Amino acid sequence: MAIPAPVRARRRVVIVGAGFGGLSAAKELARHDVDIVLIDKQNHHLFQPLLYQVATAGLSPADIAQPIRSIVRKQARTQVLLDSVDAVDRAAQRVSLASGASIDYDALIIATGARHSYFGASWADRAPGIKTIDDAVSVRRTILLALERAETNRQEHLAERAEYLTFVVVGGGPTGVEMAGAIAELARSAAETEFPHITRHCVRVILVQSEQRLLPSFPASLSESAKKALEGLGVQVRLGSRVTVIDDEGVIIGNQRIAASTVIWAAGVRASPAAEWLNAAADRAGRVIVGSDLAVPGTDNIFVIGDTAAVIDAGGNAVPGIAPAAKQQGRHAARTIVARLLARRDPGRFRYQSFGNLATIGRKCAVVDLGWLRLSGMTAWLLWSAAHIYFLIGFRNRLIVCANWLWNYLTFDRGARLITGIDRTM
Amino acid sequence: MAIPAPVRARRRVVIVGAGFGGLSAAKELARHDVDIVLIDKQNHHLFQPLLYQVATAGLSPADIAQPIRSIVRKQARTQVLLDSVDAVDRAAQRVSLASGASIDYDALIIATGARHSYFGASWADRAPGIKTIDDAVSVRRTILLALERAETNRQEHLAERAEYLTFVVVGGGPTGVEMAGAIAELARSAAETEFPHITRHCVRVILVQSEQRLLPSFPASLSESAKKALEGLGVQVRLGSRVTVIDDEGVIIGNQRIAASTVIWAAGVRASPAAEWLNAAADRAGRVIVGSDLAVPGTDNIFVIGDTAAVIDAGGNAVPGIAPAAKQQGRHAARTIVARLLARRDPGRFRYQSFGNLATIGRKCAVVDLGWLRLSGMTAWLLWSAAHIYFLIGFRNRLIVCANWLWNYLTFDRGARLITGIDRTM
Repeated sequence: MAIPAPVRARRRVVIVGAGFGGLSAAKELARHDVDIVLIDKQNHHLFQPLLYQVATAGLSPADIAQPIRSIVRKQARTQVLLDSVDAVDRAAQRVSLASGASIDYDALIIATGARHSYFGASWADRAPGIKTIDDAVSVRRTILLALERAETNRQEHLAERAEYLTFVVVGGGPTGVEMAGAIAELARSAAETEFPHITRHCVRVILVQSEQRLLPSFPASLSESAKKALEGLGVQVRLGSRVTVIDDEGVIIGNQRIAASTVIWAAGVRASPAAEWLNAAADRAGRVIVGSDLAVPGTDNIFVIGDTAAVIDAGGNAVPGIAPAAKQQGRHAARTIVARLLARRDPGRFRYQSFGNLATIGRKCAVVDLGWLRLSGMTAWLLWSAAHIYFLIGFRNRLIVCANWLWNYLTFDRGARLITGIDRTM
Repeated sequence: MAIPAPVRARRRVVIVGAGFGGLSAAKELARHDVDIVLIDKQNHHLFQPLLYQVATAGLSPADIAQPIRSIVRKQARTQVLLDSVDAVDRAAQRVSLASGASIDYDALIIATGARHSYFGASWADRAPGIKTIDDAVSVRRTILLALERAETNRQEHLAERAEYLTFVVVGGGPTGVEMAGAIAELARSAAETEFPHITRHCVRVILVQSEQRLLPSFPASLSESAKKALEGLGVQVRLGSRVTVIDDEGVIIGNQRIAASTVIWAAGVRASPAAEWLNAAADRAGRVIVGSDLAVPGTDNIFVIGDTAAVIDAGGNAVPGIAPAAKQQGRHAARTIVARLLARRDPGRFRYQSFGNLATIGRKCAVVDLGWLRLSGMTAWLLWSAAHIYFLIGFRNRLIVCANWLWNYLTFDRGARLITGIDRTM
């Protein structure tokens, strides 16, 4: 079932993945006379930096996700396919899709992101990570069910109750810090308002970080601020610690067994298998090693960007795996493709322009590193909120998220606190 | 694992089900000196009249669902349990729960609603109904995936494509009418904006009604208005027709086979198994036949209300299975319990006060029957919207739903159009 391209006057660019990188490329390409095919296995773009808020019942899925078709609907030459890649035939310039269809390209951009990677084989089921809406809704269900069960089990089975009220977050990067802070706040507010038999002293949130400080990509002073802020929320921060076992009872950190019904994975990630599709060289995390024009070495029309690529930019620095970097790469790859297909000026090597680094800890504290300015606390949180709302794709979502946040902030009401999905067994 | 009640100064009322009836009873009881235990298998109350909007991507789950704990959090003597009933021991006045716990009661209110009932054994998987958030999200996924597949399959497989673009709704009551109208509008707006290869002429929505008119609980003139309005949206209304087969290919209506990938069930419902728990007499739809005080005959402290009960009220009329009726019954049962436990004045027999009957057809048409006034069209729709927003539980939800509706109405943007859940296979 090939989608044929009999007489194509226009050149066709295929983009796989509608994350920040892929969408940014599509937007840039739409300004030029090329056909665009945008392929994603989800029907929506996800504002991943706020996914932890869905997992902790602060926002609803629709607040941070927007259907891809709706984002590109004004782009007449952009076609959207709900599908995923099985293989790439570089010689034939053709992508084979899971549905059985295949599609020819003149240029190809792969922006398929990363998934979690686990050290232990059976850890994935027990310690979910947060990469998709379904992940987040499932984690939300796990956390809320744990609170419900602790509330019901108050009379007997004290050990079981403690297990329900222990939350372990593995990984001390931005996602781990955000999750630990948000779980601590959720559990606290639940304890204070709606679960009369849970007090804040019963709740235990443990953040396990293998390195000697949190947020290793930030300056040390901000790592320290983040740690203090988390401890202020009641989070136990374990630095220089490794989780060696995750099983039905909980985790083993070093030699200590900790019974916990909720374990969240925010540690290693692994790039999607683009290197296999392309038969290209990859680094240890599975990221395709691309040239400084973002093209796969040996080709001039296949680009890999975002979390799927290992990039050393024109300044000689490794480009971080964050949304602004993916967007810049998308734009750069698009411009390079236009230059090569339509004989325009080549933009040359990719140069990452850093606008700073942000992470949030709960509802009134964040750390912000702008290079020339380092902030922590409430001011940083306001800056963080403004930046995230500004960058949320879709005007509607911005308004709703704003309203939601304001409401949550004023009332601490978490309206998204729904347990949905099939696993409701007691 | 019994929850013991050693020395109870206060009498305990157990309410099973936190729908309109159960919540209304809990609210009324909270005004008196009794302990309340509210049990539901979901953690949220659901505004069921708007569930079809979640199924058709007009609203998000959190817009119409509110955590039960958050609703009753100001009621100090109300305890919430996430659990479900296995059995009731009438002699011991004890409810056994699925978790293994059991709980004693002085009075019991059962308000566990109804589920779909199918004529054919294997129909449930193929023709989902809409009773829970999970049902609605699953139907939304089915509808949106059908559009995606039709868009992709445009080149070959024309028959398959027609199957994806045929939507069959079984049942011509308010839910069926609302679903058919909403699917027609969703498919039309999708065709006009975001799916360039689907035109409105490819989309077929068929509403199958076994009776000779739609909305049999409304006056005939409004049934006719509803039919005209649906036909105006492109819906094929088949009156006096029965679906005899539902299988992988689609449905058979009378003798005609119709290939359809999406079939929605809005026909028969069956009450939850309260009659079995109580060993009480039930009608054909499984509803417990209660006395005019809403108590199970032969008892004075077990009440069944809402869709689980068959009630002839003091006026001699059968009480309809709609939200306002359930609320009135909840209040009545609560007052009767207070009278009997605390020796207050008995409210006597239940008398249903009808405030009217409403159903909507798309985004600017509804039918309203107030007894003294019958309306259809835009005016009725405005009245319908106002009534629904007013009755939505929770101030926050009212605001958000209002904003969402206004936005959808002005832009026809359906931000909730997310395909989530595990079934994403092509």
